[in-house]
Amino acid sequence: MKTKINKEKSRKVKKEFKMTFLPFETSIEVPSGNSILDAVNKANLPLKTTCGGKGTCGDCVVQIMSGNYQSKPSTALSDQLQSQKYALACRTEVLDDLIVQIPQFQELSIKSIIDSKFFEEQKDLISGFYEVDPPVKKIDLELSPPTLEDNYSDLKRLELKLRKRFALDNLNCEYSVLKKLAHVVRENNGKISIVLFTSDKYKTIIDVIPQSAEKRIYGIACDIGTSTVALHLVDLQSGKILSSCSSFNQQIKCGEDVISRINYAQRPERLQELHDLAVGTINHLIHKAADSAGVSSSDIYYTSFSGNTTMTHLFLNLEPRFIREEPYVPTLNQVPTVLSRDMGLNINHEGRTVCAASVGSYVGGDITAGLLCTPILRDSEKISLFIDAGTNGELVVGNKDWLMTCACSAGPAFEGTGIKCGMPASEGAIEGIRIHDGKLDYKAIDDTKPKGLCGSGLIDLLAELFIHGYVDRRGKFSMKKAKKKIVETEEGKGFLIEQGKHSFWGKELVITENDISHLIRTKGAVYSACSVLLKGAGLSLDKIDSFYVAGGFGQHLKVENAIRIGLLPDVDRSKFHYLGNSSLIGAYLILLSNKNKDFVNEITDKITYIELNTEPTYMNEYTGALFLPHTEMDLFPSVKKLFSSITDE
Amino acid sequence: MKTKINKEKSRKVKKEFKMTFLPFETSIEVPSGNSILDAVNKANLPLKTTCGGKGTCGDCVVQIMSGNYQSKPSTALSDQLQSQKYALACRTEVLDDLIVQIPQFQELSIKSIIDSKFFEEQKDLISGFYEVDPPVKKIDLELSPPTLEDNYSDLKRLELKLRKRFALDNLNCEYSVLKKLAHVVRENNGKISIVLFTSDKYKTIIDVIPQSAEKRIYGIACDIGTSTVALHLVDLQSGKILSSCSSFNQQIKCGEDVISRINYAQRPERLQELHDLAVGTINHLIHKAADSAGVSSSDIYYTSFSGNTTMTHLFLNLEPRFIREEPYVPTLNQVPTVLSRDMGLNINHEGRTVCAASVGSYVGGDITAGLLCTPILRDSEKISLFIDAGTNGELVVGNKDWLMTCACSAGPAFEGTGIKCGMPASEGAIEGIRIHDGKLDYKAIDDTKPKGLCGSGLIDLLAELFIHGYVDRRGKFSMKKAKKKIVETEEGKGFLIEQGKHSFWGKELVITENDISHLIRTKGAVYSACSVLLKGAGLSLDKIDSFYVAGGFGQHLKVENAIRIGLLPDVDRSKFHYLGNSSLIGAYLILLSNKNKDFVNEITDKITYIELNTEPTYMNEYTGALFLPHTEMDLFPSVKKLFSSITDE
Repeated sequence: MKTKINKEKSRKVKKEFKMTFLPFETSIEVPSGNSILDAVNKANLPLKTTCGGKGTCGDCVVQIMSGNYQSKPSTALSDQLQSQKYALACRTEVLDDLIVQIPQFQELSIKSIIDSKFFEEQKDLISGFYEVDPPVKKIDLELSPPTLEDNYSDLKRLELKLRKRFALDNLNCEYSVLKKLAHVVRENNGKISIVLFTSDKYKTIIDVIPQSAEKRIYGIACDIGTSTVALHLVDLQSGKILSSCSSFNQQIKCGEDVISRINYAQRPERLQELHDLAVGTINHLIHKAADSAGVSSSDIYYTSFSGNTTMTHLFLNLEPRFIREEPYVPTLNQVPTVLSRDMGLNINHEGRTVCAASVGSYVGGDITAGLLCTPILRDSEKISLFIDAGTNGELVVGNKDWLMTCACSAGPAFEGTGIKCGMPASEGAIEGIRIHDGKLDYKAIDDTKPKGLCGSGLIDLLAELFIHGYVDRRGKFSMKKAKKKIVETEEGKGFLIEQGKHSFWGKELVITENDISHLIRTKGAVYSACSVLLKGAGLSLDKIDSFYVAGGFGQHLKVENAIRIGLLPDVDRSKFHYLGNSSLIGAYLILLSNKNKDFVNEITDKITYIELNTEPTYMNEYTGALFLPHTEMDLFPSVKKLFSSITDE
Repeated sequence: MKTKINKEKSRKVKKEFKMTFLPFETSIEVPSGNSILDAVNKANLPLKTTCGGKGTCGDCVVQIMSGNYQSKPSTALSDQLQSQKYALACRTEVLDDLIVQIPQFQELSIKSIIDSKFFEEQKDLISGFYEVDPPVKKIDLELSPPTLEDNYSDLKRLELKLRKRFALDNLNCEYSVLKKLAHVVRENNGKISIVLFTSDKYKTIIDVIPQSAEKRIYGIACDIGTSTVALHLVDLQSGKILSSCSSFNQQIKCGEDVISRINYAQRPERLQELHDLAVGTINHLIHKAADSAGVSSSDIYYTSFSGNTTMTHLFLNLEPRFIREEPYVPTLNQVPTVLSRDMGLNINHEGRTVCAASVGSYVGGDITAGLLCTPILRDSEKISLFIDAGTNGELVVGNKDWLMTCACSAGPAFEGTGIKCGMPASEGAIEGIRIHDGKLDYKAIDDTKPKGLCGSGLIDLLAELFIHGYVDRRGKFSMKKAKKKIVETEEGKGFLIEQGKHSFWGKELVITENDISHLIRTKGAVYSACSVLLKGAGLSLDKIDSFYVAGGFGQHLKVENAIRIGLLPDVDRSKFHYLGNSSLIGAYLILLSNKNKDFVNEITDKITYIELNTEPTYMNEYTGALFLPHTEMDLFPSVKKLFSSITDE
């Protein structure tokens, strides 16, 4: 009898529970008694806590999508949020199979990342490269019915028609087209459309479909960022963007920067995992974009990607190891056109994929694509400087005739990563701040309660704190002035931006000295790279006609404040153009025109790369830039003037 | 208790048995009590019996490869064969799971079908087309190791080397090559080989492998006949044939001729089945050929196929229906290069497949490939006539400047099909017969006991019977002369060729009047097609400089006897050249040279096709040819002379 009872008991008291974490779709089994935080850690997911699981910091907030759970009370989470099934991972015991959303990595609100209005405003910048002439085209044909006298085969009839009517000759034809040709031709009485793919090397018929005025063909332009992935669904006939989506790159759970991902990918099954995560992220977004535009994914025939060299390699499932091993030789920079299905993309079976060419291991396709958003490639008189402060910092200077580039390890601070209250430019992110009469005014994206600060908000905040004397030139709090606003956090002193009761998560929003130090190192890396690059090119700042700034700051970067903290050089403000996600715009321009792809390929052959690690002056320049705005105040005359006028007050 | 016993009973007395038939690898479940013949019929396999299952004709002999069985005694099968586990399907009850070989369709002995010596003898004929310049080549390269100063990507290093060293530019590169490039280059210190595929449209790197002098690349040349499939494994570097194989086309179970296969393929799953059967046959032969030559199938990169239009469509898994529906328009005649893996071929993942172009629905790639074995395509003075009497009869007349062709429904009688004791030119087939002093001498292939007669044996037999007066000009037995040799069969009177005790199967070998009538219809179809074709071309026989005869007769076709029965015209014997399986030789020539493929493609554009079905004179010609050798004896002066001299005796 004893045995029986034990058996029943074990049946009733389930010892293992299945935890599924969104948006990663990672599942793990954990024993009962574990907290959700234990499970998160076992699943190796990037949910960080400041208090170490004491239930005080509120960083580990999650939302329970299904399953029963029991949370211990905590002041770090409001009753309202608790009623919406939010819970602190560290205070919640696993008692059931659970599906748990990690809001930090929830899908991004699109309009902040990709704003069509913003894109329209940039159109004059990129107009030289904007043309709707994609390599995939739909061609309508009418084949006359065969007779005993005119009994050419179906394929021959098609070829003759294309030769006669469109002067198209010497075409390849995909097997899948041969397979369906006879039926499509006969069922539609010869009224068919072909989908033709033209590369620089050959032309291939990739589909044959019934002719219909409504039937359109589509493409995807996608920026694969280390942190976020963003894409447009594009009508390949009109060039119109129909819908856009963005989300975190799911690879984030395997490491936040390219180096940690390369390390993670050392084992073959982990390379495959990273590839699958990237493609999973992309497929999810394609599905969403197609859905929202009412488009069938099988009508998507062409995709264009831009990403840094590591992201491109991981997307292509190519070994990234040699990117970081001397002499830093990737498998490829210029990427041959590949079959989308070989990458695992859920689009038409015969869809093609192109990638923006990289310059080398540390200047990737995101930069070359981004250059298409500037006149740098077509203007042979004026000199432009392109600055992309994404997860890495990359700079390009030059014009149509010559180009120089360098890359620096800036880190993703301006994308919100590694900053206590940092976040991407998504719903709830503070994107702008002013200090006025000792009071702090801010604006959050979508006008919700603030969740954190995105890049433009952090730049504003740091500039305002500095100009108004709350922070000194070394980035330390000036206690005399800031005292009232300083709170203690688990990471030391923090300047209070918003009280918990007014913030979305019910937590205080603060910036710590650590955060400021992080931001200063990032801006210092970018600024010093700029100095070294210009010196390498033998140019002074006044020789640069235009500055193009790209990055994930959010759409409302205030150039004035970026100069005040020493991120951008102190020159005439009208010379600056903020591009936003230029990598995505570049991918879009490449999608619509093979000429642009070729343009980008050519860049990689003619650009000169300066390796900062072996450049003896870089370290000095960098050290000098670790002040606000710089050790040498004279480099920032307008800031010096403003600073002295304010501190004189 | 009753229930329990019943259960045990049902466990012990198995009611269904699994029957597997070789070489088809078809399996079927049948209830106990069924005979093997019942199972064969249920499986829809082409095992024919003359006596209708009475155990007397011995046609339904099978060999039991595994499983227990119980046969009723029969005089139609010798004790010796019974001891070798041969059994009559109609007399054997299924009592176990059985694996049963059907010897009729067992693998063919290769040397009779494909004789290298025979092929060598033909080399002077085809020398104009023989060149070793296949479109797939292995190129050895050495990439110098990258340095910080010379840090081009792996792909770029490869491209630069190919450009500099081999003037190869603008290459495609398969994704699978990109995937392994970094490792192959590094693991071999830059000493690599690439496999390059060159089509008329572009060049593609299809593999990258460690450099090794021993490593060679291979190809397959294959003739897909309606009845039999034959192939060569070829060293693509030397052009040497390393091994050869042949077997029945497994599609035979779905119908013996192209029309019945087209009918069978009406349903999509049956088209797939026919495709799978063709590819299954081919894969089996590839495996065997590779095995016997000690070659890994992954080193096979290129395959070339020739077959009639229906076989080509079924191999490519293309709907064959429209081939036989007016206006007889196939999906294609000229076949684009396809990926071998898309066809399901078990060779290198990036292997390519080409097919000889068809002229139209009834003159296929077997004919155009076969023309490469003649000087017809390169001689602009002499006129040649090409006759292929395979399952269908196809004829081509002309020279380099003009070509005319026609096709007739000859039927596969000369391949042994439909003839009581007919068989392919394989082990045990009587390939030659003489009647001398009223006695019959014969020779069987491989000098075994005779199993049946192949084409050349049937032609000899018919000619000898006719010339010696055993058979009259209508193909009927002359009872006065033949009486002693005539035996009664279930299909009427038969002329005894060999007694059962001397034959392999223990059955009498006979030829019936039905068989003779069948052979006369076949030879009549070919001869009358020849007449109509020549009239269409405005030529008399004496204008033809050479006659090239192809077909599955076996390798010892006696032209003299073929003329005596009226299959071939009565002209100077030295004008005849017997080619054997010219389709296979053509496939081999195409494998080794794209020029030959292009040659064959060009034929299809310039050849004139005469449709015999709509040709008013054809029926008259055909009727006239249904005599031995012909109604008009004057068309065969040498036969007339011989005939009168013998009958005068």
